[in-house]
Amino acid sequence: MNEPLNAKKTALSPEHESAWSNYVEDFRRAGHDTVDWIAQYLNTVAGLPVLAKVKPGELQDSLPASAPEQGESYAAILNDFERLVMPAVTQWNHPRFFAYFGCTGSTPAVLGEMLAAALNTNGLHWRTSPAVAELEQRTLDWLRQWVGLPEGWFGIVYDTASTSSMHAVAAAREMVAPEARTSGNPPGLVLYTSEQAHSSIEKGAIAIGIGQKNVRKVPVDSEFRMWPEALATMIEQDLAASRRPFCVVATVGTTSTTSIDPVPHIADIAEKHGLWLHVDAAYAGAAAIVPEYRHILAGADRAHSLVINAHKWLLTPIDLSAFYTRRPDILRRAFSLVPEYLHPQVDPRAHDLMDYGVPLGHRFRALKLWYVMRYFGREKIEAMLRAHIQWARQLATLVDADRRFELVAPVPFSVVCFRFKGTDEQNKAILGQVNASERFFLAHTVLNGKVILRLAIGNLATTWEDVQEAWILIQRGAQAFE
Amino acid sequence: MNEPLNAKKTALSPEHESAWSNYVEDFRRAGHDTVDWIAQYLNTVAGLPVLAKVKPGELQDSLPASAPEQGESYAAILNDFERLVMPAVTQWNHPRFFAYFGCTGSTPAVLGEMLAAALNTNGLHWRTSPAVAELEQRTLDWLRQWVGLPEGWFGIVYDTASTSSMHAVAAAREMVAPEARTSGNPPGLVLYTSEQAHSSIEKGAIAIGIGQKNVRKVPVDSEFRMWPEALATMIEQDLAASRRPFCVVATVGTTSTTSIDPVPHIADIAEKHGLWLHVDAAYAGAAAIVPEYRHILAGADRAHSLVINAHKWLLTPIDLSAFYTRRPDILRRAFSLVPEYLHPQVDPRAHDLMDYGVPLGHRFRALKLWYVMRYFGREKIEAMLRAHIQWARQLATLVDADRRFELVAPVPFSVVCFRFKGTDEQNKAILGQVNASERFFLAHTVLNGKVILRLAIGNLATTWEDVQEAWILIQRGAQAFE
Repeated sequence: MNEPLNAKKTALSPEHESAWSNYVEDFRRAGHDTVDWIAQYLNTVAGLPVLAKVKPGELQDSLPASAPEQGESYAAILNDFERLVMPAVTQWNHPRFFAYFGCTGSTPAVLGEMLAAALNTNGLHWRTSPAVAELEQRTLDWLRQWVGLPEGWFGIVYDTASTSSMHAVAAAREMVAPEARTSGNPPGLVLYTSEQAHSSIEKGAIAIGIGQKNVRKVPVDSEFRMWPEALATMIEQDLAASRRPFCVVATVGTTSTTSIDPVPHIADIAEKHGLWLHVDAAYAGAAAIVPEYRHILAGADRAHSLVINAHKWLLTPIDLSAFYTRRPDILRRAFSLVPEYLHPQVDPRAHDLMDYGVPLGHRFRALKLWYVMRYFGREKIEAMLRAHIQWARQLATLVDADRRFELVAPVPFSVVCFRFKGTDEQNKAILGQVNASERFFLAHTVLNGKVILRLAIGNLATTWEDVQEAWILIQRGAQAFE
Repeated sequence: MNEPLNAKKTALSPEHESAWSNYVEDFRRAGHDTVDWIAQYLNTVAGLPVLAKVKPGELQDSLPASAPEQGESYAAILNDFERLVMPAVTQWNHPRFFAYFGCTGSTPAVLGEMLAAALNTNGLHWRTSPAVAELEQRTLDWLRQWVGLPEGWFGIVYDTASTSSMHAVAAAREMVAPEARTSGNPPGLVLYTSEQAHSSIEKGAIAIGIGQKNVRKVPVDSEFRMWPEALATMIEQDLAASRRPFCVVATVGTTSTTSIDPVPHIADIAEKHGLWLHVDAAYAGAAAIVPEYRHILAGADRAHSLVINAHKWLLTPIDLSAFYTRRPDILRRAFSLVPEYLHPQVDPRAHDLMDYGVPLGHRFRALKLWYVMRYFGREKIEAMLRAHIQWARQLATLVDADRRFELVAPVPFSVVCFRFKGTDEQNKAILGQVNASERFFLAHTVLNGKVILRLAIGNLATTWEDVQEAWILIQRGAQAFE
């Protein structure tokens, strides 16, 4: 059982006996070069422009119109990568990437991805790769413990939180209107989420055929949290009109302001009416790893499902969205459809992951999370999360102390929303100037009809000095309008 | 703009000035070790058992119940990977993996994945990483040319063919019943595909709320190809019953027998009734790269959408499903939902990929395909495809020459379906014996109610000798029943 690969007659090159070993040695050399390239990148990324400077079409036009007939050398490919592709890359792994949510492509995850790609194993079915199913179960259970979710919850990895949310909404439909699976959606299904919820909730509902007008946007309070009384009223009104409420999506850490919906109160209402409760904690769920922030997931134990993206604040490169549910039976009922050629296992510990969602193929995504959790350990990750939260508070204090600016929302996590007390145009000009410096990338949002500046911390390489310098540049931008 | 990363006060380790450089150097060493590990794996994979031998729960039980508090060394992680994880991996990258569809995690793709993970850039929106959107457009256009699809088709990468198919079905709904987006699915929508279509078509229809009973399974002819006359009749019957046919899914290379549905004839019918035509060429589409197989996509130019999985027969590790459509406007109408904080570009060459599907985040998946296409070049890939097809034919000839066995379907590509002329139990016993040898992994299928043996060729390391030895072992298994 330890034969060397006889490569003499692979399709790679039937003529040359040494084709396979040349192929592997070629990889070994290029692999070492690529590792060194990545190390150099990590040591110098802070000096790169954060935002790509290219014009639309510029990269496409710089690449040949057709793929090569003959293979090319790794040196040529890496050279083009550096010369043509890199200038078109917006550097999400940059310490001064402060847009959307900060994130990190950490080094242990790079190793996990290398191995996953080389093995190319596929856990659609337990037997087709027990390692995929079982490492995923174990790793997601580790994360479940870190954030304090109840024992026994089932975890599965999807690509993005949008996909996770769509699966949650589909499971909700299966629970409340199981006839949909056979007969198609019945009329009148209604879903509830807040005005501040992520757009993917609405998109998920559209995708599964619920219809945009059947997505109720529950108003929020002055701190951008779902208003439970309004939720209760909307449900009553829909019931009175003979509609069928089936799902509520609460958010812990909304996209604009990272607000925390009152999950326990929402859970009361969901339970009263028999609705599926999904908690979108894609960004902020990670903060529950910090003991003094454990409370942010209060009430989530009463949810039917919850999502945390490891590729947001958990050092894991995109994509790894950790979806948890206490009703895997319903998720499975919504999606299982086993053809004969993929006959199921009978053992209860052998999960066929294809039965729990749309995608049949299941990449070995858990490997990179396993690498991340083991390499850093809980303490280092906790320390990073705490530092990012602390720096966000320090920035909020600075903003608060500058009479030209105002904070527009509380700062429960690592995102600060604020504005120059002037026009939208002035705020946009300030943002434009900061981003044009190439040293930072911040995005804006809109709250109560006003343009808001938004600084999100989340990259492992970020320092407090990076945040401070962004603030100094923002202040400098404001001087033009004094 | 070329400052070294001042890592003194990153969250990684506020105390140690050298924390960041230690972190990077630690990666460099471990990265080189991991590259060497992969090289060694590629040189010895042929000697590993193809199917994992573990029992359900065995890997999970061997891993600690909780994640570590303190970080661990890369050496410890790689050691556990080798000692605990590897025995639970079914080796899809093994030359004797003959189950499902053969595939390859090729070395250039490993390099592409390394870089994508390290950059962690996210092309949800053109501006958030022009490289992601533009390299994807360019690379998918290269592949479009290789397989001879019409100029101007729009390509986008999804994770799996199941996801691609779900998006096709949703786009079909948008074309025929655009009111669904706002109001939810209208009653009576009906989708058509063959009895031999992949289960993901049905699953996609269930997911988007069409209902399983509204998926018509069109009968097939003796060669397992959709029977167009039956399709036409079923559509007429549904129209007569005031239902709303909206989509036909044809398959080029069905999952069981790799049969080719008569796409031109199906296109006639789809056009007559104004239905969206999706072509599932997830596995076999790659064969169109070989000039003498170009014809397999005849009629596909009249489809609205088509999928080819690069992670099947195109040397790219999972996941990379290339989805093409000549109606990106409709796909976009089905899925675009742009929130203010992700304000769209106006330039027509700046595609915001989030507008074309459920997932918002968009991984830099195209990078690995770009590496694959450049490193191998068209000629080497063509040679591999041709060799695999030729070996499948040679095996079919051997099967045909053995009076104890029978071929049960034509062999248009690299998959051979055959059976021992005995009972289902005998065929299962033969298969069990071959797989228990640990030297091969074959799967079975069921056709016309009978258990069928199925040998699929598709890995780059496979040789004709590997196929021959599998056949010898199968013949040996049959001796018990003579």
